[in-house]
Amino acid sequence: MNKQDKILIIGAGLCGSLLALRLAQHGFRVELYESRPDLRKVDISAGRSINLALSDRGFKALRLAGVEEKAREICIPMYGRLIHDIEGNTFNSNYSGREGEYINSISRQDLNSLLLDEAEKHENVNIHFNSKCLSIDIESTIAHFKSYDTGEKFSVDADVIFGADGAGSVLRKSYYLERKFLFSYSQDYLTHGYKELEIPADKNGKHQISKDHLHIWPRGKYMLIALPNLDGSFTVTLFLSYEEGEYNFNNLTTEEKVTEFFESQFPDALALIPSIKDEFFNNPTGALGTVKCSPWMYQNKTLLIGDAAHAIVPFYGQGMNASFEDVDVFDSILNEVGGDWDAVFKAYQERRKKDTDAIADLAIDNYYEMRDHVANPLFKQKRKIEMDLEKHFPKDYFSKYSLVTFNEEIGYNEALKRGRAQDKALLNLIADEAVSTSEDMSIDELKIVLGKVQEETDDILEEDRVAGLK
Amino acid sequence: MNKQDKILIIGAGLCGSLLALRLAQHGFRVELYESRPDLRKVDISAGRSINLALSDRGFKALRLAGVEEKAREICIPMYGRLIHDIEGNTFNSNYSGREGEYINSISRQDLNSLLLDEAEKHENVNIHFNSKCLSIDIESTIAHFKSYDTGEKFSVDADVIFGADGAGSVLRKSYYLERKFLFSYSQDYLTHGYKELEIPADKNGKHQISKDHLHIWPRGKYMLIALPNLDGSFTVTLFLSYEEGEYNFNNLTTEEKVTEFFESQFPDALALIPSIKDEFFNNPTGALGTVKCSPWMYQNKTLLIGDAAHAIVPFYGQGMNASFEDVDVFDSILNEVGGDWDAVFKAYQERRKKDTDAIADLAIDNYYEMRDHVANPLFKQKRKIEMDLEKHFPKDYFSKYSLVTFNEEIGYNEALKRGRAQDKALLNLIADEAVSTSEDMSIDELKIVLGKVQEETDDILEEDRVAGLK
Repeated sequence: MNKQDKILIIGAGLCGSLLALRLAQHGFRVELYESRPDLRKVDISAGRSINLALSDRGFKALRLAGVEEKAREICIPMYGRLIHDIEGNTFNSNYSGREGEYINSISRQDLNSLLLDEAEKHENVNIHFNSKCLSIDIESTIAHFKSYDTGEKFSVDADVIFGADGAGSVLRKSYYLERKFLFSYSQDYLTHGYKELEIPADKNGKHQISKDHLHIWPRGKYMLIALPNLDGSFTVTLFLSYEEGEYNFNNLTTEEKVTEFFESQFPDALALIPSIKDEFFNNPTGALGTVKCSPWMYQNKTLLIGDAAHAIVPFYGQGMNASFEDVDVFDSILNEVGGDWDAVFKAYQERRKKDTDAIADLAIDNYYEMRDHVANPLFKQKRKIEMDLEKHFPKDYFSKYSLVTFNEEIGYNEALKRGRAQDKALLNLIADEAVSTSEDMSIDELKIVLGKVQEETDDILEEDRVAGLK
Repeated sequence: MNKQDKILIIGAGLCGSLLALRLAQHGFRVELYESRPDLRKVDISAGRSINLALSDRGFKALRLAGVEEKAREICIPMYGRLIHDIEGNTFNSNYSGREGEYINSISRQDLNSLLLDEAEKHENVNIHFNSKCLSIDIESTIAHFKSYDTGEKFSVDADVIFGADGAGSVLRKSYYLERKFLFSYSQDYLTHGYKELEIPADKNGKHQISKDHLHIWPRGKYMLIALPNLDGSFTVTLFLSYEEGEYNFNNLTTEEKVTEFFESQFPDALALIPSIKDEFFNNPTGALGTVKCSPWMYQNKTLLIGDAAHAIVPFYGQGMNASFEDVDVFDSILNEVGGDWDAVFKAYQERRKKDTDAIADLAIDNYYEMRDHVANPLFKQKRKIEMDLEKHFPKDYFSKYSLVTFNEEIGYNEALKRGRAQDKALLNLIADEAVSTSEDMSIDELKIVLGKVQEETDDILEEDRVAGLK
């Protein structure tokens, strides 16, 4: 490894631009290639999710690159879920019982622009837009591109190539197709797809529903969610099966059917989405998939990072945070492990893979939780107890959601193990009526609950350990 | 669906030839294409596993097709594992505590020949060898081939195409590459590969070690196994990491190193493998991978079956059994579900997928069990208790191994759930000293153990159910 190494990054999205910024800060020479036009000049949002959830793991990486404060300026805090039932009633469910723990809605375009601006301030970074990567020769580290400006094809030789080119990564595809090594790979689609709609601002430019919440309309077989934007609008996302159930993407083919669906299932939301018919038929239907693979690297030549290495479904609001955390972990490894790129790449995957596998699985967990469980009585009782525990024992209790979202000092894998065991403990204690679920417990009563949950959680983890014989 | 439909089966291996036989018995017109020469005339075994484990699920399907008895004639029963330690001591570990429960070693070539012979007896079956499938147009159900006899390319039009073409399925690849639908797909490789060696018969043509056992030399990081052949020889398989540990496939590059490895780790086996040096360097190193995918079908046109739909690692001895069971389940669906092929295909996957996913996971479980756990004291105590329970309460207790191997009336998924919970219960009861592990328990004492295991197993399943909120 050498500061004079020419580093090629494919993809100037959120992960690629943060990686470019951070490697530039280390003094490396970085060439950043992006297939789309410069999003600071052209609106390219059509059909992509317009806002995203940013939380502590993402902030930690942004802090490392010195851009946390600038990002915070364009955030809208969301303190909890606001659940809308079919009669139009709403129920608040905080993300944490502790003060100051919340997630944020942020515009993908604004944040990406900020990162590109910061990267571009470095002389050792060159950004090339409208340059579509067609294939990568991983043996010779040569990337082949087509310029959308000139229509010409061209090739770029590099010392190291990072594939930060998202879920449809060209670098990952070359690993799969070139068969130079045993490449473990999975792509798993949910039976549901998604479509984006909009709740516009009111005539005064204000939000029409609470901007302090992530809104959810859970209906079991389908779900609507909404995140606030700075301009007073909300980006609404419908999650719906392609082909199952009474209503699905395949059979919602007429305006009447779409109206019937929303009127019967989401009447309060429908009243706020004036362009539903246009949007429903003009906006693309996106697929929801999980990608895992291994190895991420090829020798000392190439590395997959961000969604290219581990695309996840959006239900934990951790996709961007996980990709930013990649950059943070990679940076630590870069500082700890000297020598060749292959040693760095190997140590990076060794430390990181179990955590990105875990967040992928957690995101699937939350798909079911958001669709089904938020309306389940047992689940509601669990969340009530957890809020109370977090509020009164802020240093002793962390729900699975808090472990994943607000505790960036522990990895996703640890959060998954501890969080799942704790959920299992609490749900079984409630089902067995072994803990009180009364609305107003005293601190002493609550302390007893805490003790039981901790003991039961430890038992569960120990029993799993014994059974795993590891 | 129509008896006049022209059915094309790609692959005349074990699954393809049994499927051809069974569909012919139903009266369908079957064209069976195979890339390799007719194995009844040419020895094509080089580098492939020469014998396989056949057990109850496989026999059930063979019985359906009327060939069970013929298969039994070429089987060698194996009643348990014979574990060889590093000092050359051996320990017997039966597969079941019940009488008459054993697995069988059978020659792949002999069994495949038998199935081809039986299929060929039907006028409505045509078998074409030396015909390599190059690609399949799934929309028009046209398969493209190259003849290895003439070198010519040719195409075959069919009404329905079955891909029984194994782990490297061409039909599956066309699903992946054509992108006509969302295709969930995974290929997962173990860090270990395998290599086949041979223990020849003695000069009288007899087996040199017990032919009533599957032999295992477990060493944690690597393992040797051996299955008997009818000619007195054993096929030995070495499982070893590609690149990890002191000894691995990448660094065993000299005769000295190979000899050192076997002398230090498998001295008793080494003495029985006279051609080790030739075999080690001339036999190919095979990869160990798991393939899962979904959907298996495309409309009413194509279906993946056998390894093409679900390749698994060999550690449960269930690969062939699972593929044969596919044919049995498909046959049931064919009888139950009338109408179009797409209805049959859909119902088949609906019933079958959870079970093939389960055996894939169970086979990975056994990879760790065989390598590590068979030498673990806790595991040994568990197996001892399980043998006693099966012997004295043959209708009340079934180990995970028995559920998977000898209980073909329940699916793999059910066997996995019940079996894993039971293992967890037993291991924790032993670890907590909550059950006796004395060598000579009375029936009454054993009955107490049985009660505790059953109760704890049910608790574990119930707690999982509550936590899953399903």
